[in-house]
Amino acid sequence: GAGAPIFRSADGVFSFKPRGRILLDVSGTGGSRYEARNITTTGSRALRLGIEGGVGPHFFYQFESDFAENGVDVVTAFLGWRHKVAGLDYDIRIGNLFNDRGLEGSTGSDATPFLERTVVGTSVIPQRGFYGVGAQGRLFGPSWHASLTLSGDDVDGAYAVSDSRTLLARAHWNPLKTSHAVIHLGLWGFDERLSSAASTVTRNTVIGGRFNGNLRVSTGSLTGATHDTGYGAELGGYVGSLWAMAELGQRQVRLEDPRDFSHLAWSTSVGWFATGETPPYNPRFGNFTQPHVSRSVLDGGLGALELTARYESLDFTHALLAGRGWAATVGVNWYLNSFTRLMLNGIHWHTDNRSGDFTGGDDGQTVSMRAQVSF
Amino acid sequence: GAGAPIFRSADGVFSFKPRGRILLDVSGTGGSRYEARNITTTGSRALRLGIEGGVGPHFFYQFESDFAENGVDVVTAFLGWRHKVAGLDYDIRIGNLFNDRGLEGSTGSDATPFLERTVVGTSVIPQRGFYGVGAQGRLFGPSWHASLTLSGDDVDGAYAVSDSRTLLARAHWNPLKTSHAVIHLGLWGFDERLSSAASTVTRNTVIGGRFNGNLRVSTGSLTGATHDTGYGAELGGYVGSLWAMAELGQRQVRLEDPRDFSHLAWSTSVGWFATGETPPYNPRFGNFTQPHVSRSVLDGGLGALELTARYESLDFTHALLAGRGWAATVGVNWYLNSFTRLMLNGIHWHTDNRSGDFTGGDDGQTVSMRAQVSF
Amino acid sequence: GAGAPIFRSADGVFSFKPRGRILLDVSGTGGSRYEARNITTTGSRALRLGIEGGVGPHFFYQFESDFAENGVDVVTAFLGWRHKVAGLDYDIRIGNLFNDRGLEGSTGSDATPFLERTVVGTSVIPQRGFYGVGAQGRLFGPSWHASLTLSGDDVDGAYAVSDSRTLLARAHWNPLKTSHAVIHLGLWGFDERLSSAASTVTRNTVIGGRFNGNLRVSTGSLTGATHDTGYGAELGGYVGSLWAMAELGQRQVRLEDPRDFSHLAWSTSVGWFATGETPPYNPRFGNFTQPHVSRSVLDGGLGALELTARYESLDFTHALLAGRGWAATVGVNWYLNSFTRLMLNGIHWHTDNRSGDFTGGDDGQTVSMRAQVSF
Repeated sequence: GAGAPIFRSADGVFSFKPRGRILLDVSGTGGSRYEARNITTTGSRALRLGIEGGVGPHFFYQFESDFAENGVDVVTAFLGWRHKVAGLDYDIRIGNLFNDRGLEGSTGSDATPFLERTVVGTSVIPQRGFYGVGAQGRLFGPSWHASLTLSGDDVDGAYAVSDSRTLLARAHWNPLKTSHAVIHLGLWGFDERLSSAASTVTRNTVIGGRFNGNLRVSTGSLTGATHDTGYGAELGGYVGSLWAMAELGQRQVRLEDPRDFSHLAWSTSVGWFATGETPPYNPRFGNFTQPHVSRSVLDGGLGALELTARYESLDFTHALLAGRGWAATVGVNWYLNSFTRLMLNGIHWHTDNRSGDFTGGDDGQTVSMRAQVSF
Repeated sequence: GAGAPIFRSADGVFSFKPRGRILLDVSGTGGSRYEARNITTTGSRALRLGIEGGVGPHFFYQFESDFAENGVDVVTAFLGWRHKVAGLDYDIRIGNLFNDRGLEGSTGSDATPFLERTVVGTSVIPQRGFYGVGAQGRLFGPSWHASLTLSGDDVDGAYAVSDSRTLLARAHWNPLKTSHAVIHLGLWGFDERLSSAASTVTRNTVIGGRFNGNLRVSTGSLTGATHDTGYGAELGGYVGSLWAMAELGQRQVRLEDPRDFSHLAWSTSVGWFATGETPPYNPRFGNFTQPHVSRSVLDGGLGALELTARYESLDFTHALLAGRGWAATVGVNWYLNSFTRLMLNGIHWHTDNRSGDFTGGDDGQTVSMRAQVSF
Repeated sequence: GAGAPIFRSADGVFSFKPRGRILLDVSGTGGSRYEARNITTTGSRALRLGIEGGVGPHFFYQFESDFAENGVDVVTAFLGWRHKVAGLDYDIRIGNLFNDRGLEGSTGSDATPFLERTVVGTSVIPQRGFYGVGAQGRLFGPSWHASLTLSGDDVDGAYAVSDSRTLLARAHWNPLKTSHAVIHLGLWGFDERLSSAASTVTRNTVIGGRFNGNLRVSTGSLTGATHDTGYGAELGGYVGSLWAMAELGQRQVRLEDPRDFSHLAWSTSVGWFATGETPPYNPRFGNFTQPHVSRSVLDGGLGALELTARYESLDFTHALLAGRGWAATVGVNWYLNSFTRLMLNGIHWHTDNRSGDFTGGDDGQTVSMRAQVSF
């Protein structure tokens, strides 16, 4: 983010910058027929501290840990090299790398348009999660990019069995890209050979925000997994201050037992900057980033105001005890400046689980707020 | 602290500063009739790293984690706004906030006059601890301040039940405030509706320093709590290099069972800067801060030498199996400069527990040392 | 490391510098007759973030945490004072201090010539590990240094029993020290009175790199320990771009039961900078540091290329159920610049354990790679 200084050596060869995020939330739920779901909690979506640096035009590195939920989670940690090949920019990075996987899945937690990523981003995901230790190459064209990642598990201390092995690819293309309008197309997929330590693939996926632990769509118990694949498509863009995005994804898990498990997730979302800003779409990476706020509150302006809406659907019902759900969200994002925002999301959700404590059809409303600064 | 540089953008709009504390201790106990209490340990009171930043005159933020005891504890993490209203300064902060609660309870671990806060600060405290995620407003007059805080739990990963809800208020007033002398008066209180996950309110409160795990005053098992309140008063001040402070507090816990639990704690302490410094009382917040050392050791001087003494008493005996205790402490603080000090405390303590491994009257002595730098 | 800026106040009195290390690995093993040993894993050898600072010429401090393996490990955290006595430099540090113990044992994880320290450094070590909270004094002559350390346990949260107490000493001497050649001699030893919480001294020592949890040389179960001592010797040096080093160490543990346990470890290693650099031996501390790379890749050069080889042997067989092993390693280190390197180690290892899952003679090969930057 832009909220921290960049230090450069006098000759400009070395650069060094602190990095971090403070994302703090409060979330309240009502309307469920299960009292245990009608709760109010506070929490931290991200509390990160780290650094990024570079030497000369080609070499760069980054390391960041997340202390959200009062624990440690190493997030990005890599060394990288960038240059040109055949007139195109590329970079290669080795280390613990963030998945390039869908538009919201590839967007940082401090830049997602809603408090939580779409169910495509949270459910059609490698078993090892958002990060893996490995190598990634990215190639950048004038109106597209493509990436290929090979990785093992996330940073951990488990050295008694082999890591899972994940191969991940994504490409996006902007068939239209002007200063006023952009069309975004994207495709991605991953293939994962699961470690013997990763054979349990039970999922309880967030549907009304992560701060209500009882509000999940569950696959029920799924064990004996050996392999999984996932793929997805993205279609969207913006005109003026209005953006729209649809995402679709499917994941298939090969199980030792009866039959395989597959599930589908999709979402469609729109946003509009009432204060006239251009949507913070980044055509280099094909994801969202932080907006340029015309009249920062910190300069005496009113900041930027974005209105958002999303419908998303998650269907695990290919498994016997698996559930499904959907959520409709409306939101307001108030950007005080480019790296500070307050978010309000109202979510009407529906779950229909077939295992766990909250089975059968259930509906309710969750209201969540977030205060956020990133640097 | 002053031990780290503040970075400002060329136009002065942005500021950014690393923050941290290194507080390392050794503690030895003797004289107890229980051999298991006569132990020597080393430890870390605080090992913090974080940042603080600001944009323009009004917006500021802070994030700091503590790695003492080789774990993670997110401490302050907030976004804030400060301005004037009716000629008075105010600020509003949202995030994980430190309680404004008693003089020593509101003093940072790197500025307390003794190695450990008074028993008022360590026992008359919300069940959720020193921090909670919420909002706090503070108003500052020429010789007073007042604050009001509404919060849920500390940063955690527990989202299955509602947070506790804590309302906390404090005010202080300096009826006398000259360059030579100050009188301090303070009042504070909190009201806490306990979450179902916080119904066990058993306390084992530090009496001879935190680095002897067997040296505690215990309430015995207390379960089924639903609500608690606490309140306290502060009276003190300084003349020249001599300061004195008395604190008193009471906490009442509503239990489902037989009867409620209440307890009382009080302390009185004095300090004197043999080297002539003014006591590091901060009249803006009504707490202790770091002293201005006239002749820093790092400039070839002798530093500042402070002699301290305290008597404190803690009585849990309103509960059937609860204990009581008192401690008398004498100490020497040697400030090498304003942000570096060595501390030595000698404590004669007495405990009379009615549950646990160390029941009945017991007396002993604990000697503790600390090396400290904060930045 | 040199990869981060040093900030100084305008008058030069204050200095402040971020510190950190990113060491990420991939490791694959084959050839064992136990399938569970033939695994491929990724991991982090070190992921550190911290600061160091100073005020004036004499006072300095440092604090660094390691988040490798997705946890917290406080490493260095100290306050220090340096000055001259009788014409010799000295420093005194209090806090959590790194052992001064053998050449590789005293070398940072970002400067060891191989991916893992020699078995002397990993096995002839105090029970409390590489760090302890205490005080250390070091004296520096023109061609030697000596150190003495008294410490308790590492930073922890265990305050129910006394810490272990460790006394540690080391000295090194360079009978020959020219710009072209150095001879290094070193001696060290420690004496440790074990805490009742540290009476289990079972060891499973790394032999083919730390990222294969099944590849260890085991002592078998060893309990009832009350005291241990260790000592070692170092002999080596360099001529031009070629260095060689031999280390030898022995550890003796007093057990309550049948008889004591002692074990021996030794290693001999060589390295050669094919690109002509001087070996990164530091004659002040008698350890390895980071090389001066003549033609940095980041300046368009080829970097520095070091070829290494080591043989090491570990024999625990003084205990009934204890094993032994040896490893022969060849390696290539490619230093992109002074603080960035890629490492490749090929290890042929042999283990002969008498307890655990992998008993009897077993041989195999492990290939490991590391990407590393330190700042």
